[in-house]
Amino acid sequence: MMTRYKMKMTYDGHLFHGFQIQPNQRTVQGEIEKALLKMTKGQRVVVHGSGRTDAGVHAKGQVIHFDYPGKIPAKNMMMALNSLMPRDILFTESEIVDKDFHVQYSTKGKWYRYIVDQHHFTDPFKRFYTGHYPYPVEIEKMKIAAQDLLGEHDFTSFAASGGQIIDKVRTIYYVNIESKPEDKEIVFDFIGNGFLYNMVRIMVGALLEIGNGKRPVHDLQRVIAAKDRQEVRTTAPASGLYLYHVFYDEVPEKYRLDKKKH
Amino acid sequence: MMTRYKMKMTYDGHLFHGFQIQPNQRTVQGEIEKALLKMTKGQRVVVHGSGRTDAGVHAKGQVIHFDYPGKIPAKNMMMALNSLMPRDILFTESEIVDKDFHVQYSTKGKWYRYIVDQHHFTDPFKRFYTGHYPYPVEIEKMKIAAQDLLGEHDFTSFAASGGQIIDKVRTIYYVNIESKPEDKEIVFDFIGNGFLYNMVRIMVGALLEIGNGKRPVHDLQRVIAAKDRQEVRTTAPASGLYLYHVFYDEVPEKYRLDKKKH
Repeated sequence: MMTRYKMKMTYDGHLFHGFQIQPNQRTVQGEIEKALLKMTKGQRVVVHGSGRTDAGVHAKGQVIHFDYPGKIPAKNMMMALNSLMPRDILFTESEIVDKDFHVQYSTKGKWYRYIVDQHHFTDPFKRFYTGHYPYPVEIEKMKIAAQDLLGEHDFTSFAASGGQIIDKVRTIYYVNIESKPEDKEIVFDFIGNGFLYNMVRIMVGALLEIGNGKRPVHDLQRVIAAKDRQEVRTTAPASGLYLYHVFYDEVPEKYRLDKKKH
Repeated sequence: MMTRYKMKMTYDGHLFHGFQIQPNQRTVQGEIEKALLKMTKGQRVVVHGSGRTDAGVHAKGQVIHFDYPGKIPAKNMMMALNSLMPRDILFTESEIVDKDFHVQYSTKGKWYRYIVDQHHFTDPFKRFYTGHYPYPVEIEKMKIAAQDLLGEHDFTSFAASGGQIIDKVRTIYYVNIESKPEDKEIVFDFIGNGFLYNMVRIMVGALLEIGNGKRPVHDLQRVIAAKDRQEVRTTAPASGLYLYHVFYDEVPEKYRLDKKKH
């Protein structure tokens, strides 16, 4: 008998070669499947993630599902896996779900966070956990610019080449940019129905250029319309990016800024 | 002409084999001396630290001094060194001082911080930056116990063997223990005129055992009187320890709790 488990997890991505399993590389999926292989005594259990994260990208709220041959209470499954995990992975929630639940196809939205360190030289304790941008930025300019990202757009200009996805239309529900002067940090939050490869890191790169005055405030309107990746050449580093939350219920109204726009 | 520089620095200790230079090991002192060797084009400059930190121990306010052959403005010296440092070391303050200043012998006090992570399994983002203690503790008990450490005592029971120091009398000026339930953390602060080898980590180990009920609340009075390292066998892990600040002026009155103690 197979039981489907849905589990929420957090990981420090800096020593992983990303989420997705790859031969001879240390990956998040690889570590989980290795642990499950021990539990099943050799029967492979395929782990599905809500989405891939690249090398160096972190997760506060990644979600996975897998079908386990047998039935263990959800809490016990979590305890067992946590005992077998390396210290950079931690499961935080666990439940048994129906077979029609799919961690990737059942999503209603995703929340990414990006943290920028503004120190002149990076704070040693933040070097793996923030993206470094030591140049002056005007937060207000970036907030105005972020409005241009809200709603449904073809985000071709914000997608790294190499992806196999043809439909590049996505809807951004929510953008928030907050300055934390006491930590010399800027925190970007993005919630949308989906994000293209590197899209958040490219959006952050473009927003920082606007904040720094390298681009006009409403340049993103032009960039979106151009549908050309060459319009934004800056990709913010992986180290600042966190998969923060995955929504399986409708994204709450308070995060639907796209609906309140004009 | 030699110029003496006093510099304040922060470092993430988790990838260092401690502060003190050692052959074939990556150390903080080694990295600084390597950079200075580049600046002097081959003339060794000896770096003195206010004290050693062990492998894995961090610093928010380590202080060093060295004599440089030549005179560069203090700010420029800091910029030059920061440009040559690996990303886990950062200089934050710099000044030119008299020859009678010595970073180790001129100290008036030291401040160590210890951070305990109380999650059942360690938070992945804290594994290098906290000590893990998942057992229940009563903060109030530890606060009462900490009073017994204040003042001048022979701390033989709290010194790791192997040190060459014979006089084990030290004065603790200040202890503060703060629970941060939102982060599941406990933060310990200790200020004293000096600390023996592993002393802070052993004091934290003993305090946690009191908080957990393994020892009576006033057990430290007995432990101190015993002058026997076997009385405390628990040394909290290096990962939670920070050299937080070194005082070169008198320790401010607000941190002299030992004087207020009757």
